[in-house]
Formats: sequence, structure tokens, C-alpha cells
Amino acid sequence: MSGEFGIVRRCFAPLAKGEAALGLGDDAAVFSPPPGRSLVATADAMISGVHFLPDDPPDTIARKLLRVNLSDLAAMGAEPLGYLLTCAWPKGWKEDWIEGFAQGLAEDQERYGIALLGGDTVGTPGTLSLSLTALGTVEAGRAMTRSGARVGDSVFVSGTLGRAAFGLLVRRGGLLGLNQDLRTALTEAYRLPDPRLDLGRALVEKRLATACLDVSDGLLADLGHICQASGLGAVLWSEHLPLSEPVQEAVAEDLETFPLVLTGGDDYELCFTAAPGAAEELMSLAQQLGLPLTQVGEMQGGSGVRVLDRDGNALIVQAEGWQHF
Amino acid sequence: MSGEFGIVRRCFAPLAKGEAALGLGDDAAVFSPPPGRSLVATADAMISGVHFLPDDPPDTIARKLLRVNLSDLAAMGAEPLGYLLTCAWPKGWKEDWIEGFAQGLAEDQERYGIALLGGDTVGTPGTLSLSLTALGTVEAGRAMTRSGARVGDSVFVSGTLGRAAFGLLVRRGGLLGLNQDLRTALTEAYRLPDPRLDLGRALVEKRLATACLDVSDGLLADLGHICQASGLGAVLWSEHLPLSEPVQEAVAEDLETFPLVLTGGDDYELCFTAAPGAAEELMSLAQQLGLPLTQVGEMQGGSGVRVLDRDGNALIVQAEGWQHF
Repeated sequence: MSGEFGIVRRCFAPLAKGEAALGLGDDAAVFSPPPGRSLVATADAMISGVHFLPDDPPDTIARKLLRVNLSDLAAMGAEPLGYLLTCAWPKGWKEDWIEGFAQGLAEDQERYGIALLGGDTVGTPGTLSLSLTALGTVEAGRAMTRSGARVGDSVFVSGTLGRAAFGLLVRRGGLLGLNQDLRTALTEAYRLPDPRLDLGRALVEKRLATACLDVSDGLLADLGHICQASGLGAVLWSEHLPLSEPVQEAVAEDLETFPLVLTGGDDYELCFTAAPGAAEELMSLAQQLGLPLTQVGEMQGGSGVRVLDRDGNALIVQAEGWQHF
Repeated sequence: MSGEFGIVRRCFAPLAKGEAALGLGDDAAVFSPPPGRSLVATADAMISGVHFLPDDPPDTIARKLLRVNLSDLAAMGAEPLGYLLTCAWPKGWKEDWIEGFAQGLAEDQERYGIALLGGDTVGTPGTLSLSLTALGTVEAGRAMTRSGARVGDSVFVSGTLGRAAFGLLVRRGGLLGLNQDLRTALTEAYRLPDPRLDLGRALVEKRLATACLDVSDGLLADLGHICQASGLGAVLWSEHLPLSEPVQEAVAEDLETFPLVLTGGDDYELCFTAAPGAAEELMSLAQQLGLPLTQVGEMQGGSGVRVLDRDGNALIVQAEGWQHF
């Protein structure tokens, strides 16, 4: 049998491992968080031509959809548990594309130790539209939020900034001065973010962060969210922003691209605040995880985010982050 | 501020009541099921022109999206808790449409005692695409599934059959022989299903059902799912199928429409199986809920669903239910 049931059974049923999903054969998934842990839920949508390019490989589209949601769980310090997926396929969508998509999910399920819990596949006269709800658990009462930052807290980011935004530039035919290796590295960062689940978990376990979120809209906008939720302002030091080699080269090539480091979306690094005394423990955590953690600024009174250059002069950054809509 | 953040804040933030949603201001919702209860999760997508008509009122589209998911919770016997919503709006989508949509959600949240827990709003170059994940809780170990039916169990359905499918016929310009009141009643049944949450809860509390699901693909296909999951066959008695007055009139008008009663989707009544001895208790439950519960057939050995007329002759029904894709 072809149609909805055939494709679900063939491609997606094998992804529904574990008792919770009831083999996708039932109306809903049933599961219980372990004692002492709360449930965490988040949902993100991705649309062809908006959040990925139509000719991106289907397996990386699937994995990005999963990972941007896992990144939200990471930002709360949660352990992922499973996900529900709805897909709206354009009529006549190729089955081998769907198979590649399911293969990408299978690969990342394995990597993150999670399973498909349920969902829906429908046809659409429009564009390929995907929506994923990720569920996880966190120690009860310990989920990190955006609202706990205090005056004097240090602002940290994990990894490096701007890779995804510069990767999108490459995909759109820009940054032609860069060599192929650097272009490929940037493209891959755009296609396949790396949700910082280990970092999120460690920050909760060690009680190191006062506020946390993932950088999906650009550091400037996202730190702005922490400021707003915490009722504070913040300063960012432009010369401390951690840049990967390809981004350094791209900025050297064209200085005009520098604001993308602050406003480019899709990095999915964690931005968090921590008491000044936590610095040493954070440096040892960074070493343990093999993931740079860089202090990029400080929480202050007032409101909004100011960006200062090495001489302490305020930089004007045009676009306040990335808005999908 | 317009764009994503402005609309979310203005229309959707008021829907996020309760601590779990963290006011939609955070990356994910955090909550705990009450002790002794498991979590239940389900997701459904709805696409303009496929699952609703572009000129359906926005508040009924929102409420239908919510209710088809609540119906899945009802089928497991779960108590609804909250939902996550992703919306892909076509560029330039009217804000008053979005306001009407949010108003419909507000109304049904109140009715069902639930809240928006999180989600995502994005733009799309394509069709309006909606996806909703509903979360609920059920007594641990007691969720109803499709797989527990036994030979000799009675097959019951709640309410009446075919109203939504005949309502869609009306919306598409058919059934012109019916009077306006009947046409309106059918259209409303199509637009606004009534998830049988009280029935689902009661079936779990009283341990009355051996298997259960909601009729979303047509009784024939859905009872087929119970058969397959339970490793059994079933017989349906065509003269016992409960029909509302408008559907009776429509069938009288045009006998050719009768198969729709068995194959039409979107009714969202519950179909469940129960031991023959449960009949009396079910009748008193029906009275208590003010909701007809009708025995329409019986589980048997073998496989598949046979439909018998009043003389015991097998009816051939052409389309095996409604497939969205």
C-alpha cells in the first residue's frame, strides 16, 4: 500500500523504538519521566526555502530539524528523551528523499539516544513544511531559564560565533575569496548545528549558570532576551568574540561582514551568565568537554546590550539579530 | 515591533498561562505530571486546502486543530494538560486572521482547562501550515491502546457517524436537497469536532474498554486498525450504525452517499471494544454523559472488517477509509 500509511510504516515506524511510541501504531505516546525529574518540551518549525535550501541534502535537513530542538533542550540543561514529528510533503514528493530524511533521523537518534514518539504525515499543495516537538527531562526545579542573571555576572558563549551565518553566505554564492576547505567548513556548520547538550547538563549539575539560552537569533538579540527576562542590561566586548578560522578569514576578506558575527542566526551555541567566581570551574569544564567557553561580556544595570570595541567605544550594529518572519 | 516577536507577544503570549510555559519567554516549557500518572503526547498537522478550507473562519480552524489532538488524548483516556503549536504563515498573512485564530485557541483553552506551553511561528512562501502537539496525563499503566480487543468483545462507537464527511460535502456545494438547518448542522460538525475526553476518562476509570481509538479515518479503516493491532477480525452491522438526523436525510436523498458513513473521516468519535458483560454499565455511562454509545459490531477471529446488512449479507464498501495522502 502506498500513501500515508505505507510511507509511515516503511520509513518512520523503525524510528519508533521503545515502549513509549507504541510502535507509532496508537493515537499517542505514553511515558513517564524518571522520579525527581521534570518534563521539558519545545517545538520548532522549518520551511523549505526559509530555514533550509531546497537542494540541501534530506538527511542534513532532518538532522538540523532535530538538532535545533535539542539545542532548546540543551539551553534548559535537559536530557533529551524523544520527539514527535509532523511532515507536510508536497504532492508527488520523491520517496527516496523521504528515505534520506528518515535515514538522517535514524543516525541522530542513535547519536543522542532518543526515539520517535509519534506524529503525522500529510500532503500539502504548498512548500515542504516540517515541525518537530522535542521532549526531555531535567532535575526538578533546576531547569535553566533566561531570567536569573545578576549585575556583575559574566556573559559566556560556547564554541565560536557566526559560522552558520557565514555558511549561509557561502551557500548563496558569497565569500568567493575563501578557499574550498573553509567554504565547506562554513557550509557544514550551517547545515548541521551541534546542540550543546553536554554543556547544558553540566551547567545544571554543577549549578554554574544563572541564566542560559541557545544562540538561534544572533548573540546580540539573544543576549537581549536574557537582559529583558532578567531586567538588566549587558555589555559585549567585540574583541573577545570567539571566531573560528573560516570566519576570521571571511571577516579579514570583507570587514563589512563583521556584524554577522553578532546578528547571524543558527549558531546554536549556548550563551549563559555566571557569577564571576565561577570562571575557574568553567575553564576546567571547557577543557573536560573539549569545547571553548569564552567570556564575551558582563551583565550590568539598565537595559539592552551595548557592544564596545577594544578602546571602549560603542559600536553601532544595524540589524538587531535575525528575525525569521 | 512587528514581525515574529511582535505577533507572538501580542496574540500568543496571553495564551501561555501557568508556570510551565514560562510566559513563552524561554526556550522550552517545564512541567511535571502528577504522581501516579504518565505523560501522553500526540501531534497532528493541518494544511490549508487539505484539512480545512481556506475560507473557514480562523477561530474554528484553530479550535479544530486543537480538538483533533485532544481527540487523540481522549482515545487513550488521558486528561489534557497543554499544547505546543507551530504556525507557518504565508507572507503578508493578515493580522486580524491571526487574532481570530488566537481567539479560537483562547476559547477552547478555557473550555478544556489547558494552556499553550510553547511553539514557533515562521513565515512560509507556501500554504498556511499548522502543527500542534498535545500533552496530557493518564493513570500510569492504564492508557487505552488499540491492541487489547478479544474475540467476542462488543464494538461500540460514541455519538453518530458521518456528520463531518457530509459536512464537507455541503461545504463543497453538495447535498443541495437538504434544508438550510440540516446543512448548517453538518457544516458545523465538520468544522468543530467534539473530542470525547469525558468518555475516554470514564472508560479508563471504570476499566470498561479493552481497546480504543478515535475515528479520524472513517470507522471502517479505524476499526481495521484495532483488528490489526489486536490480531483479530471484526464484523460491523450496517443497520446498527448510529446516524444523526441530517445524515439520515442526506442518505435518504442520495443512497450513493451511504458508504461515507463508514469511510468518511473527521468524526472524532471514539470506537472501543468491551467485554459483552460491560453493556449495562456502558448504557448507564452513556446516560450520565448525555452521549449515545451504540454497539455496532463484534470482534471475531481472523482478520479485517466485514460489513453485514440486516439479512447478514456482506456489503462491499469501496474506499477503505480516508487517506490524507
